[in-house]
Amino acid sequence: MSTKQHAAVPKVRVIGGFWKQKTSMVAQEMVPYQWKALNDKIPGAEPSHAIENFRIAAGEAEGEFVGTIFQDSDLAKWIEAACYVLADKGNAELDAQVEEAIRLVGKVQSPDGYINTWFTLVGPDKRWTDLAWGHELYCGGHLIEAAVTHFQVTGQRNFLDIMIRFAEHLMTTFGPGGRLADAVGGHPEIELALNRLAEATGDERYAQLATHFVDIRGLHPENFTGQIPLGFEIPKSAWFEPDYFLAHAPVREQHHAEGHAVRAMYLYTAMAQQAKRTGEQKLIQTLETLWKSTTERRQYVTGGLGSHAMGERFSVDFDLPSDTAYTETCASIGFLFWARAMLDLNPKGEYADAMEITLYNGVLSGVALDGKKFFYVNPLEVIPRIAHKRSDLAHVKTERVAWFGCACCPPNIARLVASVGNYAWSIDQNVRIDQYIESEASFCLGSSPLTMRMKTSYPWQGKVSLSVDAGNGTFEVKLRVPGWCQQYSVKFNGTTISPPLEGGYLRIYQDWKSGDVVELDLDMPVRFVSAHPSVSELAGKVAVLRGPLVYCTEEIDNGPDLHTLNINPLGPTSDHDFIDFQDEKTKLTVSGSKHRTRDGQSLYQEWSTREAYTPIEITMVPYHSWGNRRPGQEMRVWHLAEYPQ
Amino acid sequence: MSTKQHAAVPKVRVIGGFWKQKTSMVAQEMVPYQWKALNDKIPGAEPSHAIENFRIAAGEAEGEFVGTIFQDSDLAKWIEAACYVLADKGNAELDAQVEEAIRLVGKVQSPDGYINTWFTLVGPDKRWTDLAWGHELYCGGHLIEAAVTHFQVTGQRNFLDIMIRFAEHLMTTFGPGGRLADAVGGHPEIELALNRLAEATGDERYAQLATHFVDIRGLHPENFTGQIPLGFEIPKSAWFEPDYFLAHAPVREQHHAEGHAVRAMYLYTAMAQQAKRTGEQKLIQTLETLWKSTTERRQYVTGGLGSHAMGERFSVDFDLPSDTAYTETCASIGFLFWARAMLDLNPKGEYADAMEITLYNGVLSGVALDGKKFFYVNPLEVIPRIAHKRSDLAHVKTERVAWFGCACCPPNIARLVASVGNYAWSIDQNVRIDQYIESEASFCLGSSPLTMRMKTSYPWQGKVSLSVDAGNGTFEVKLRVPGWCQQYSVKFNGTTISPPLEGGYLRIYQDWKSGDVVELDLDMPVRFVSAHPSVSELAGKVAVLRGPLVYCTEEIDNGPDLHTLNINPLGPTSDHDFIDFQDEKTKLTVSGSKHRTRDGQSLYQEWSTREAYTPIEITMVPYHSWGNRRPGQEMRVWHLAEYPQ
Repeated sequence: MSTKQHAAVPKVRVIGGFWKQKTSMVAQEMVPYQWKALNDKIPGAEPSHAIENFRIAAGEAEGEFVGTIFQDSDLAKWIEAACYVLADKGNAELDAQVEEAIRLVGKVQSPDGYINTWFTLVGPDKRWTDLAWGHELYCGGHLIEAAVTHFQVTGQRNFLDIMIRFAEHLMTTFGPGGRLADAVGGHPEIELALNRLAEATGDERYAQLATHFVDIRGLHPENFTGQIPLGFEIPKSAWFEPDYFLAHAPVREQHHAEGHAVRAMYLYTAMAQQAKRTGEQKLIQTLETLWKSTTERRQYVTGGLGSHAMGERFSVDFDLPSDTAYTETCASIGFLFWARAMLDLNPKGEYADAMEITLYNGVLSGVALDGKKFFYVNPLEVIPRIAHKRSDLAHVKTERVAWFGCACCPPNIARLVASVGNYAWSIDQNVRIDQYIESEASFCLGSSPLTMRMKTSYPWQGKVSLSVDAGNGTFEVKLRVPGWCQQYSVKFNGTTISPPLEGGYLRIYQDWKSGDVVELDLDMPVRFVSAHPSVSELAGKVAVLRGPLVYCTEEIDNGPDLHTLNINPLGPTSDHDFIDFQDEKTKLTVSGSKHRTRDGQSLYQEWSTREAYTPIEITMVPYHSWGNRRPGQEMRVWHLAEYPQ
Repeated sequence: MSTKQHAAVPKVRVIGGFWKQKTSMVAQEMVPYQWKALNDKIPGAEPSHAIENFRIAAGEAEGEFVGTIFQDSDLAKWIEAACYVLADKGNAELDAQVEEAIRLVGKVQSPDGYINTWFTLVGPDKRWTDLAWGHELYCGGHLIEAAVTHFQVTGQRNFLDIMIRFAEHLMTTFGPGGRLADAVGGHPEIELALNRLAEATGDERYAQLATHFVDIRGLHPENFTGQIPLGFEIPKSAWFEPDYFLAHAPVREQHHAEGHAVRAMYLYTAMAQQAKRTGEQKLIQTLETLWKSTTERRQYVTGGLGSHAMGERFSVDFDLPSDTAYTETCASIGFLFWARAMLDLNPKGEYADAMEITLYNGVLSGVALDGKKFFYVNPLEVIPRIAHKRSDLAHVKTERVAWFGCACCPPNIARLVASVGNYAWSIDQNVRIDQYIESEASFCLGSSPLTMRMKTSYPWQGKVSLSVDAGNGTFEVKLRVPGWCQQYSVKFNGTTISPPLEGGYLRIYQDWKSGDVVELDLDMPVRFVSAHPSVSELAGKVAVLRGPLVYCTEEIDNGPDLHTLNINPLGPTSDHDFIDFQDEKTKLTVSGSKHRTRDGQSLYQEWSTREAYTPIEITMVPYHSWGNRRPGQEMRVWHLAEYPQ
């Protein structure tokens, strides 16, 4: 494992295709919309109060704190998203909003560097007394990430300096020799932030504090149970034991994906970042074990994580119910962070494949196509007439909503999508393409400046062309062949080539000069997928995918009672030159049958081969797009397979 | 509709076979065990305190009330069960226990007739202030039922007189002209009790009060919502709205089985008893609508009722999840009461068929074969490793337990099983056999005393012989042919006859004399049953039944991951001359296949016709007997059907 290869971070701009539509949506709709939401100006939405809390804490407004104890993080994530938008294109209005937000954060800061509006307004004497639930390190971490992004995008240090003062406050409070040397936060995030801060400033002390937090986690499970100083009481139930906080065991003794799914993902990301820095084999082995636990036994086909609503958490192996799934948008986003860190640690295509599935399905389902409505919970099966009447489905919204009282997901998805280009390119001594996103990247290889351009109609088609726009050099270009792809072809400047495929990547090593073009064509047929036999929920069922997209049925296309549709995985399918969902070109059809009700049918009757199954063509749409045309209707990912098994 | 045909109530004794084993179990094990439980003498069990509450209220012990507000009803139901046991066979010790219980009840009675230990000890100033949750009418109802039974069995009036004083207190408090003329209890039961009291005493005023309670129910939904005087607060959730209490609409405007399942069943029973008395067509039509709602859209194949744990209640049509099912034992028992009342109203075999399914499955599953452990909740699928980790399965016990803090079910099942013979014979001008239970019945037809005897190996085999032991006369004997039976034969004194089949009953009209024997032989093959296509949970699945018994798989026979077993409904089956579960002769086998895991199988993979399905013989046992050999293991009723559907 090598350390410190951060010099060649590429400057990436998304320039077209599927993702340009998404990043434009973030820039034009989500970020302005969320600024309004954070300022409580969305009629009918649950109020945020996040910015008002800062104004009150800054002494610029009257009133009381409102919101969750981690409300500050909503603003932090929004600032980060806004900075990514500004990086793409100047915007004076947005720039002014960002600077206003930074000004407020700075004004709330105490002389010792501390920042948190809840503790300033509600519990000024309670700072750092409740690491389990207080979320001070979590909120501070998001502010640091925003400040680092702001610095990287604008080159301005105003926000960075504020957050360095905060970080210095942490340095004297936590860590070896600190007043709270044994303390660690209930929700990992500060670790990711400190790693980024170390990278941005070159000050390794911050990364060492992150390492400290990772290393002492789980040494004191007793700090994560029972009565707590803030007056919150940890619910006395099996779902809020120390494992909820990933504090049940030292991290190197954690072997199963446990606890609150977002907390788990953030912790594992920090662990992988640390392993990258230190090269520690024990930590790497632990991460590989946790990766297998997650992806081989506890992840939904959409990439979603967290089977269990109470505690928004993992349950047990192969427990993957479609209807009661929690699969929080933030957990999918956190998985992307982790997968990216694993890929940095060990560039296997498997990690990029998993990232891809989660990005196109479990993450994108969290936001409406117009960028103004959100899912927090992303189930794989919704029957509204049942969901509305069952307490065990009370967490399921049958349509996306304008905002949440606990709104961690909307700004998280904004910053993720706004920075999606960063997941496409990895520059080392070579150029590695992990995700196919129409974009332009500028970077240095050794001392040579290079600009490369990727064009693609992904995810609708598998054609990718990669060209050198400026510069030249001798290096390897690695192009990922997704695990789902069985057939592909590669051309260099129009001539078919057969580069070796290793670890999921095609390796094209040669002299590159301006104007060179590599073309990759990934075959993208409709695929039928089944689950491991141990998943009771999915016995006999099949999911339909094409490329990286999971498809689902919707009531608007197929009528109600979607469970009566059985799919024939051996039958014909049809797809189209997909362009855009709005004009309904993204549908595909598969063949199957519908179990029809017979006249006068009783609730139970003798099983009969004469059951009324009618052949039918079944229409499916990308899972992430469900609920956009006629919200509040049935949706289903997994259907019974029609044929003998 | 005729009124008042109560004169010919038969005296029935269970004398052998399946049910003699059960009634002996109640007499020898359950009733003594429950007396100990009610006296808090079962080591390790949740304490009852029911009798101690009476002792304290009677001034014979020190201490405070402990238990649910309806704890008195546990003792009442036990007394009723004990009286049925005494009816079968004298037992000085049990008789003394019953008389001691009656003495305590009498001593707790206030001068005005009122009886309730919670209100005497905890809220003496709160009598009748909270009809929604107070359960005073419910507890009183159970005491009246016990008193009527005691009177009928022993001929003694001591308990009856106590409860008549209680009933007279109700007469002056409730009903037209009463102080609380608009009031009605939150949990129906008093109505059933008053109807029995009217029958036992011949005093129609009691039945009129029952009628009043039925008729005013739902006129004031506002009494069943919000804050309440006892300090309990009705949980503010959709599951505890007035429909929970069946008080959301006047009963004649209720068209769907709603609310708390036990409350619903008791109310519908009262409505059917009233319809029998009055012949009111509107009420009869309402009952038929509710019957269809229940049995055609909201009932489990085991007869269980209540899909939803929160509120122990009905949810929506065709929502019948197997794992989160509530299906309380008491709801199945209540359904038996209702079905019996419907049968009394209109003797169609359909009602007796439904009664049979519920009795042999949803009721009997509630008690262990040894009579000493109980299920409150009776799911159709249990995977302990998952159930133990999910909050939405927190209500599911994976094995029967010794007692419950809320122990309505154990004494209810005791009184039901102890009186099961009463569900076999209905005497009108004729003799109707509704259930096949080895028993002897004495009764009068007109002025002729008759004794008849039924012998049967039911439910293991379909052979029934019915003989006249003493007496003679010209009358019709009606023998039910269960809806599941496609083939049968009938003999009279050894000669095959072909009596007409009408409404589910064979009608055998002739002169009967002592020694005459009718033999019925019901064909009882293994049957495969599927559910209505609208039940999403059961799509593609099949249940296995034989006679009235639902069968299930257990891990002890088939290994874990029972969901990997697919049943072939067209394949061979085997069954045996069943005798007894304990010696494992009740198993049957069906053919099918097991979906096996391949080496290195990932969580999701391309669907393939080469899936590893291995042919297998699947062992099944009666659902009611599950969890008796090795508790705490997997169980499953519904399996995927193997063949194209």
